[in-house]
Amino acid sequence: MIEWIVGFNMKDNILSYKAINFEEKLSLFSEQWSPKVIAEMNDYQIKVAKIEGEFEWHAHQDTDETFIVLDGRLKIEFRDGHVDLQSGEMYVVRQGVEHKPVADGEVKILLIEPRGVINTGDNATDARTAENDVWI
Amino acid sequence: MIEWIVGFNMKDNILSYKAINFEEKLSLFSEQWSPKVIAEMNDYQIKVAKIEGEFEWHAHQDTDETFIVLDGRLKIEFRDGHVDLQSGEMYVVRQGVEHKPVADGEVKILLIEPRGVINTGDNATDARTAENDVWI
Repeated sequence: MIEWIVGFNMKDNILSYKAINFEEKLSLFSEQWSPKVIAEMNDYQIKVAKIEGEFEWHAHQDTDETFIVLDGRLKIEFRDGHVDLQSGEMYVVRQGVEHKPVADGEVKILLIEPRGVINTGDNATDARTAENDVWI
Repeated sequence: MIEWIVGFNMKDNILSYKAINFEEKLSLFSEQWSPKVIAEMNDYQIKVAKIEGEFEWHAHQDTDETFIVLDGRLKIEFRDGHVDLQSGEMYVVRQGVEHKPVADGEVKILLIEPRGVINTGDNATDARTAENDVWI
């Protein structure tokens, strides 16, 4: 529950005012396809994740989803095309749009989406479904 | 209205799937303290801004505000302390918390906040109030 306590304290500024450093957060875990929450803004969460290989097709019926690439190259496939993202680039996948993230090498990303969004979207929970609301 | 049209098209994916590149967007303007919208996610906007010098004390009573530093160094002063941010770092200023951004040199930042948030917060509109919802 350490993550939760730290998150709670940051949220209420009980701790000293401390920057959230993306590299530092990313150095704390190695699992891929397992987003970790690093901050909350209102009812939205900002997460870091490491991804590599192909994810599964999915959509989020209730929300847009923002991808920001910190390091590496990410392709997001759509049924009728794709977008290529590298460090310093972002894309917002619209609500309801089927997409599949694909990365040839490991990519480090920021995800921004409402609290409670599941990584596999509207698919039934499956092997690729990550635990939600895990702080780091 | 070019900005609006491009924003609209990106939102509805009428244009081809194109990454949003922070450096490219930042190269399109030089005004400081004048955030430009580069993307929308649900009812939130992601903005780029160039800032230098001292802003004014203000607070946003209705929302948190996320600062991500892309380049340079940013200090956010609070009434009882401050946080120092550099490239690759972020901070979420909580709803209602008085703050004053300060930058010795020019800093390039991302701002994430709900559509409609005014840069000078709850202060009466003043000389520092930037035009809102300006796309680039």
